[in-house]
Amino acid sequence: MNKITGLIAATFAAYNEDGSINLALIPTIVDKMVNDGLAGVFICGTNGEGPNLTIEERMLIAEAYVKAANKRILVLVHVGHSSIAECRKLASHAERIGADAISSVAAFYFKPSSVQNLVNSMAEIASAAPNTPFYYYNIPTLTGVAMDMIDFLEQAENVIPNLAGIKYTASTLQEYQACLNYKNGKFDILFGYDEMLLPALAVGAKGAIGSTYTFAAPLYLKVIQLYQEGKSEEAAAMQMHAVSMVRCLVKYPSIPAQRAIMKMKGFELGKCRLPLVPLSQQDETNFKAALEAIDFFNVVNSVVAV
Amino acid sequence: MNKITGLIAATFAAYNEDGSINLALIPTIVDKMVNDGLAGVFICGTNGEGPNLTIEERMLIAEAYVKAANKRILVLVHVGHSSIAECRKLASHAERIGADAISSVAAFYFKPSSVQNLVNSMAEIASAAPNTPFYYYNIPTLTGVAMDMIDFLEQAENVIPNLAGIKYTASTLQEYQACLNYKNGKFDILFGYDEMLLPALAVGAKGAIGSTYTFAAPLYLKVIQLYQEGKSEEAAAMQMHAVSMVRCLVKYPSIPAQRAIMKMKGFELGKCRLPLVPLSQQDETNFKAALEAIDFFNVVNSVVAV
Amino acid sequence: MNKITGLIAATFAAYNEDGSINLALIPTIVDKMVNDGLAGVFICGTNGEGPNLTIEERMLIAEAYVKAANKRILVLVHVGHSSIAECRKLASHAERIGADAISSVAAFYFKPSSVQNLVNSMAEIASAAPNTPFYYYNIPTLTGVAMDMIDFLEQAENVIPNLAGIKYTASTLQEYQACLNYKNGKFDILFGYDEMLLPALAVGAKGAIGSTYTFAAPLYLKVIQLYQEGKSEEAAAMQMHAVSMVRCLVKYPSIPAQRAIMKMKGFELGKCRLPLVPLSQQDETNFKAALEAIDFFNVVNSVVAV
Amino acid sequence: MNKITGLIAATFAAYNEDGSINLALIPTIVDKMVNDGLAGVFICGTNGEGPNLTIEERMLIAEAYVKAANKRILVLVHVGHSSIAECRKLASHAERIGADAISSVAAFYFKPSSVQNLVNSMAEIASAAPNTPFYYYNIPTLTGVAMDMIDFLEQAENVIPNLAGIKYTASTLQEYQACLNYKNGKFDILFGYDEMLLPALAVGAKGAIGSTYTFAAPLYLKVIQLYQEGKSEEAAAMQMHAVSMVRCLVKYPSIPAQRAIMKMKGFELGKCRLPLVPLSQQDETNFKAALEAIDFFNVVNSVVAV
Repeated sequence: MNKITGLIAATFAAYNEDGSINLALIPTIVDKMVNDGLAGVFICGTNGEGPNLTIEERMLIAEAYVKAANKRILVLVHVGHSSIAECRKLASHAERIGADAISSVAAFYFKPSSVQNLVNSMAEIASAAPNTPFYYYNIPTLTGVAMDMIDFLEQAENVIPNLAGIKYTASTLQEYQACLNYKNGKFDILFGYDEMLLPALAVGAKGAIGSTYTFAAPLYLKVIQLYQEGKSEEAAAMQMHAVSMVRCLVKYPSIPAQRAIMKMKGFELGKCRLPLVPLSQQDETNFKAALEAIDFFNVVNSVVAV
Repeated sequence: MNKITGLIAATFAAYNEDGSINLALIPTIVDKMVNDGLAGVFICGTNGEGPNLTIEERMLIAEAYVKAANKRILVLVHVGHSSIAECRKLASHAERIGADAISSVAAFYFKPSSVQNLVNSMAEIASAAPNTPFYYYNIPTLTGVAMDMIDFLEQAENVIPNLAGIKYTASTLQEYQACLNYKNGKFDILFGYDEMLLPALAVGAKGAIGSTYTFAAPLYLKVIQLYQEGKSEEAAAMQMHAVSMVRCLVKYPSIPAQRAIMKMKGFELGKCRLPLVPLSQQDETNFKAALEAIDFFNVVNSVVAV
Repeated sequence: MNKITGLIAATFAAYNEDGSINLALIPTIVDKMVNDGLAGVFICGTNGEGPNLTIEERMLIAEAYVKAANKRILVLVHVGHSSIAECRKLASHAERIGADAISSVAAFYFKPSSVQNLVNSMAEIASAAPNTPFYYYNIPTLTGVAMDMIDFLEQAENVIPNLAGIKYTASTLQEYQACLNYKNGKFDILFGYDEMLLPALAVGAKGAIGSTYTFAAPLYLKVIQLYQEGKSEEAAAMQMHAVSMVRCLVKYPSIPAQRAIMKMKGFELGKCRLPLVPLSQQDETNFKAALEAIDFFNVVNSVVAV
Repeated sequence: MNKITGLIAATFAAYNEDGSINLALIPTIVDKMVNDGLAGVFICGTNGEGPNLTIEERMLIAEAYVKAANKRILVLVHVGHSSIAECRKLASHAERIGADAISSVAAFYFKPSSVQNLVNSMAEIASAAPNTPFYYYNIPTLTGVAMDMIDFLEQAENVIPNLAGIKYTASTLQEYQACLNYKNGKFDILFGYDEMLLPALAVGAKGAIGSTYTFAAPLYLKVIQLYQEGKSEEAAAMQMHAVSMVRCLVKYPSIPAQRAIMKMKGFELGKCRLPLVPLSQQDETNFKAALEAIDFFNVVNSVVAV
């Protein structure tokens, strides 16, 4: 697989009223992603509540996405789990159904104790899908696993033949830049902090994965266009819309608040699963008002990237 | 179920050479626990590598333990998982096979954001085994979930009908004592820091769950006996043997080191699973020498509690 | 100096209405400590707001305490500071005025990076008062410096000739017990968590330093007496009064809340310094009501240790 | 004072062989900063070991810098201390001697418990130098105080009349960008992570304070120039030199390693103070070799910003 250019949406889980997973909504979500100009979807990750789902549910969701995408956009399947044995089942399944790539966070109950231990753990997962590109999902604030990513690349390139790169979800752009430049850009380092997309572009980012691309892709695609045209100030002003939106968001639990935005945009995703809790009706109302106060919906609707 | 008195061993996972789980060893382990005078076993917890196992493996292990125990000692099944849906499967299965109690850590990928959220999450798990006593497994250093346990009891007693108590694995004995005394001892608060057993007895502990009881039960039973006989100094001296052992232990990764002790005592548990890694041969040799230097094996073998 | 037996009160800073330090109140405080049967006072520590005071103020306070104590009780002077140069000034001054011992936390802006680094830093402080016993003040939750204390003793005994021991303020009683037993009790390890005094006695504590001994000494002295008489259950019940009081306390900022108790008992300590903030009038009222609801004041007044 | 444009060097402490502060070297350091095209110096901060120095030493250093600068470049004096009373002495002194601005970290022993508490603490410091611009020094990784900086600005602007802005030392560029844009750029938000200078420029940074500007200013000035000329890739390549240098650096304790670079460049700063420890001779040799391997010295010497 070539390096990924553009934006990958980390999509949300969809549930029916009885709490079971809603597979029927997936084609609609995928069509929106295609229409919004995204390069792909990242499924069953943090945003997609992967760790809240059963193995069987994760497989069904993966199948539905691969089928709905039908090669129009990339499907990256997150296979992370506290048990590497379960990861391997998910990885093997993803390869079998034709996913474009797999990705995994570090084990998060027992945590890797060294870069070598992390690499060995990831190698065991990646080897269950030997013909599928593998991205290590680095997200220290959630997993508590904060290893040096250059050390990771140095050790992993020898033991993970299908290593494609890293989903890099951290604000440490100096390390991100170092990874981008590792061996003249040998690996694909996808950036994962939407609210810092423009700064990441400045150090060389070409691809990014994020949750807010699910509902605000036009805004970010415009950031990329303006940046590429050398319009620094306009790019910063456009990025500032994303920052303002995220500042509204962080007053609430992140995933439930983003799901509320999806609802405001007409997507009925149902109730997220415990320990996640949907926004209360009052919070939803306040949140919507805050987004309207910064003219968020109009901004997203009005921007057009060419 | 009445409150648990005495010691519960948090047993280790056993694997065959090919990495599959070793069910055949379980009766031998159970017999040792019975012979050592333990009150029960706690299975598939931290020590038992629950989060490293698949759901199916965990069920097979639970069945093997319940069968081997045959009501001679209690079997407490840990059902914690990042996915509450999976927890419910494990809980329901545990009840069906006749486990004496179930227990669960807080969800550990998405973490409870409040006591209420924790209580609601635990209620969803406990309700899948409504006729089986439920113990919340409080282990903040591993899960990162550090809630006030009195607040937990106050809120949980109303929504978890089968709440039996807490497996309390933290060094904060003031909170532990407060839990023991909550509503005149309404709940069963089992202590989980073996190396602090004697201090826990001093504030009223009657039951405890721990990994080192698997291989050093006589020592701890003697601590209890001496404490009950009012022999404070002898009890402290006996507890000091446990402290010395644990000080040798903490120089190595905890679970692999304890598995090495089991090997020294003749139990071939096989290789633990990644991200856990067995001690190297050199570490094992050094560790054994350190244990011999403090005369650990002789002490455990020579003490006799009456 | 022999090892310290009994309780040392970590006294509070006293301020005049204009915010200057109130030296005039110190003799009254000391007299109360003497009458309450305490073994000494620990001044300018965490509770005494040492890090909030200027060097000059700390010296004046130390002089006032030494003078007021007049050898009736011990005076331990905390000399910790972010600057070791300032620590040395305070240490040298303490020796000059005849303090019974000095103590210091680890530097807390730049933090020691290893046990050796910590030992060397403490050695530089202790050597400024070479004829005065030195206690390392171990309080990881406040300083963020969590080193192994046995390693500390092993290295420090060779380079700090006046090392007397450790003020051990952590809940890890297994390490505390190991320190007590180090080289058959070579060092004086004073326990610093009042709410865990009884469990500490169970592993061999003889002396303790704490803030709540300032206003609740009789209760704790009774715990010690009951423990020594072998009355385990009565000792635990008495300790439980302390735990209940601390549970009321932890709902508020700790030092301001304890200062409020002193005010309830007739000691006008004035307003603590920023970033500490006194309890609001409403919080003070609620806090007092909570303490009365558990009968705290009557319990302290009624217990008599013989 | 207008907003600061360009780079401010956070200079290092200089010591004589006997450990006393070396004031004589300060004019030489200042001249280098002037010649390197810097906008100013930030003194007695983290890099300048402020918290390791006595109050008197800090005042002497401030005087020497103000005199040596003689209005050629700005002198910003860090006045942070665990004691606000000491901060006020330093602030008042800085104003008296004509410093261009003062700055303070949050109190770092007792830590602010809320934004309001932080604002009130900073107000007390800033009011001691009412005619001097005040910058809050936000450095969460060192102080452990991580407050929302927009909330800070909103509350502080009403109670700190001389609030100029923030020295923002954190990698969270979305918050940094929000601060820059607060009320159309009302405040001066100086960026403090040298290794992320280019990404900060992309979101609108105009001024920055950092330690590596002391010895690598030409490189960073070139980054700024290239960025302003719209040469994105060249700017990123130039920034990558800084990233590579910092990656060599982080293998060693940061301040000692940077002091070693100063030594390599001919500045004899003497030994830093405990708990900081100079690099060993071996580490220094290895570090120099690593810097030469990435051609660091030649790069810095060869770049010329116009």
